[in-house]
Amino acid sequence: MFDDALKSDLRAILGTGGMLADAEISQRYNVDFSGENACSPAAVLRPATVAELAAVLAACSEAGQAVVVQGGMTGLCGGATPQPAEISISLERLCGIEQLDRDSMTMTVLAGTALQTVQEAAASAGLFFPLDLGARGSCTIGGNIATNAGGNQVIRFGMMRNLVLGLEAVLADGTIVSSLNKLIKNNAGYDLKQLFIGSEGTLGIVTRAVLRLYPALPAKTAAIIAVADFDACVALLHALQGRLGGSLSAFEAMWASYFDCVIEKIGKLRSPFDGSYPLYILVQSEGTDHAADRERLEMILGDLLEQGVVLDAAVAQSERERETFWQIRDGIAEITALLQPLVAFDVSIPISAMPRFLAETESALEAEFPGVTNLVFGHVGDNNLHLTVTTGNHADLKQITQIVYQETSEAGGSIAAEHGIGVTRRDYLQLSRNESELALMRTLKSALDPKDILNPGRVISRL
Amino acid sequence: MFDDALKSDLRAILGTGGMLADAEISQRYNVDFSGENACSPAAVLRPATVAELAAVLAACSEAGQAVVVQGGMTGLCGGATPQPAEISISLERLCGIEQLDRDSMTMTVLAGTALQTVQEAAASAGLFFPLDLGARGSCTIGGNIATNAGGNQVIRFGMMRNLVLGLEAVLADGTIVSSLNKLIKNNAGYDLKQLFIGSEGTLGIVTRAVLRLYPALPAKTAAIIAVADFDACVALLHALQGRLGGSLSAFEAMWASYFDCVIEKIGKLRSPFDGSYPLYILVQSEGTDHAADRERLEMILGDLLEQGVVLDAAVAQSERERETFWQIRDGIAEITALLQPLVAFDVSIPISAMPRFLAETESALEAEFPGVTNLVFGHVGDNNLHLTVTTGNHADLKQITQIVYQETSEAGGSIAAEHGIGVTRRDYLQLSRNESELALMRTLKSALDPKDILNPGRVISRL
Repeated sequence: MFDDALKSDLRAILGTGGMLADAEISQRYNVDFSGENACSPAAVLRPATVAELAAVLAACSEAGQAVVVQGGMTGLCGGATPQPAEISISLERLCGIEQLDRDSMTMTVLAGTALQTVQEAAASAGLFFPLDLGARGSCTIGGNIATNAGGNQVIRFGMMRNLVLGLEAVLADGTIVSSLNKLIKNNAGYDLKQLFIGSEGTLGIVTRAVLRLYPALPAKTAAIIAVADFDACVALLHALQGRLGGSLSAFEAMWASYFDCVIEKIGKLRSPFDGSYPLYILVQSEGTDHAADRERLEMILGDLLEQGVVLDAAVAQSERERETFWQIRDGIAEITALLQPLVAFDVSIPISAMPRFLAETESALEAEFPGVTNLVFGHVGDNNLHLTVTTGNHADLKQITQIVYQETSEAGGSIAAEHGIGVTRRDYLQLSRNESELALMRTLKSALDPKDILNPGRVISRL
Repeated sequence: MFDDALKSDLRAILGTGGMLADAEISQRYNVDFSGENACSPAAVLRPATVAELAAVLAACSEAGQAVVVQGGMTGLCGGATPQPAEISISLERLCGIEQLDRDSMTMTVLAGTALQTVQEAAASAGLFFPLDLGARGSCTIGGNIATNAGGNQVIRFGMMRNLVLGLEAVLADGTIVSSLNKLIKNNAGYDLKQLFIGSEGTLGIVTRAVLRLYPALPAKTAAIIAVADFDACVALLHALQGRLGGSLSAFEAMWASYFDCVIEKIGKLRSPFDGSYPLYILVQSEGTDHAADRERLEMILGDLLEQGVVLDAAVAQSERERETFWQIRDGIAEITALLQPLVAFDVSIPISAMPRFLAETESALEAEFPGVTNLVFGHVGDNNLHLTVTTGNHADLKQITQIVYQETSEAGGSIAAEHGIGVTRRDYLQLSRNESELALMRTLKSALDPKDILNPGRVISRL
């Protein structure tokens, strides 16, 4: 399977410690956070330089050896889990911050650098890197780029695609493409970085990136707001987008199904309200003047209460209270642990189609599985809804998945808002993308990786 | 040259009025705003539907007939100017707004729709489309996408790439790729629209787009601010980006060379200051509460005056005064008419390299052309500098171009911030992009347009 000549070539390129085989391969290389279909790779390659990675890929390409790319292993769709006979290429030794340019507000990093390391380095320089997600301590910048990661601040700063100015990637044949642009505006030829962002390592392996930083925004102001229905939620979103002058950084809707469940199941959490409401929204603004920002938010919410858009609102009066508001939103992690087995969906739905999508999904699930649990929350301003669905029965999960993805497709939505496709969602991709799109994806894959050795079978089926 | 069989096929597809030949071809199809190398196309095809365009391209592909794509003809780099023996495909009949979704804040339009039509339709719905440039009445959405247009509000809303959610394009062989995504977050497979944005019609012809709209921001607050040097300009930029809480929408630096020239040459304009300063910055914030926004800007500027970052500042006290501030910035149009012949550069330079770039360019130009005029202004927050250079002598323009592009390259800059490459800058492209990047561009072009019939010779040289 793993050609002896190739093995000795790879060992010669990588030297001691650069290649792990057999018993040296620990379990962490076998499976990503999806936890499914663990499989030990034929070897783990750990290049210490981009030149080593390029040489390794040239050798694998020559031998037709398939490779799987591994970063922090925090993906949820099996993209970094080895398939039988694949070799792993881990970027764990290609890490570190190479440059921080304070005036230009850019940072150049190697792909294996952890997201949190980048956040902290930006903060030390009085700046701010806006991408943030739960796996920040383990996930890597390379993985964030490969999956076009999202998170909580997309409404203001966009996804990872918006935060990458330039990058370097190694193509399947070992060619190093260095496109380390540091400029916000650059229309000199094709914007090649776009190919590698969000294509889950199937078109090239990202090795370096130039990231865009922002001025620090130390003052965070949060509120939980209760509304009667989805129309009011949209009216609130538009009012805050207009009147907060661009400082709105989070708009997290929690339907009663989710909110009540979190308050009930997680003992230490309390609702800021005495009564119960159909829909709650956690909003946050970020700026530099805390008192002024809070006053402005309170004034806007006062107006909306008077207009009847908002039923009740609680503005955090301290940093501690702001954190407890976020614990309600972040309670999904604990809930997920309590409710297993379940399916956690990550769909995007046009805002105008959301009410109908939620009603029809609910009734389709209920028709098949009476009493089913369906907890809903999401980044409504980004179109992104997270549904957590369970009957308590593992055997139902596949059918639940089919129902929700079918409804997503009928609503003109996407089955993958921010977690990507990987392997586990690949066979559902045609529910969100048409034949002409799939054909063009295959054209790109064929042009950049004609031997189909780079993360084969991820995103699209094998060539 | 223009094959008779193809001609009759095209006429059959397009019908009366769909194809212009010989004397029917007016001069407006012969050259774009660059005004150079006018050339009458072999025919002008005016498809009325996307299906007609697809059939036309399939026929041209079959016959190996090169085509040039034409929108509003407002490009500055010769991209839409026919080359000998090319047929023009004009999108002028493929225009109109197909859908405006107020809740989702999206608009679906045909590619031939004028930018101003889109801006006005958004405003009528109480919303806002942020792209804005001088040619708004003539330029089309298709052209804005093909060139990834910039303009005055990039610092807040990004370039056209950030404002397009989905698109439909016809490939060289006539395949229609419909990727009319309406979602902000969608990671279901490759983000195909990125291929067509900024590739200047060389990889496909954009026919429809889903645009992202924003809540209306009726309150515009502007100021002109004087500072002593570039360091103070950067300090001001960072302070405003932080303290204006995301509402900063323009940061237009004008060096004394430009500012003094405009005030001197355009009789009706006056400086808001009695004294003279090395560098002036026009800033604008956009929100919904004019009085509060102005008060905030005045407070911030007061602090910066006290700290010595700012030497003087004038905040517009009326809408009329705000407009006069912008007339100083927009005076470049009149100046350009007065100073012909000249070269108008549109370069991007990393902020940290700008002072050195400006000094070295100035001295390299002065060494070759003593007394040369070099007016500088730009969107500093976006890295984008516009240099207007003239000796009054047409024969010097080529050498001036070479000097400025060479300095741009040495500063790690881009020769094309927002106007693209087209034909006129193609031979300088290697000053901003390396061999590996150029090779990958050619790989993409070969994969999508193997016969090189779509805008051949634009951006990259012929295959």
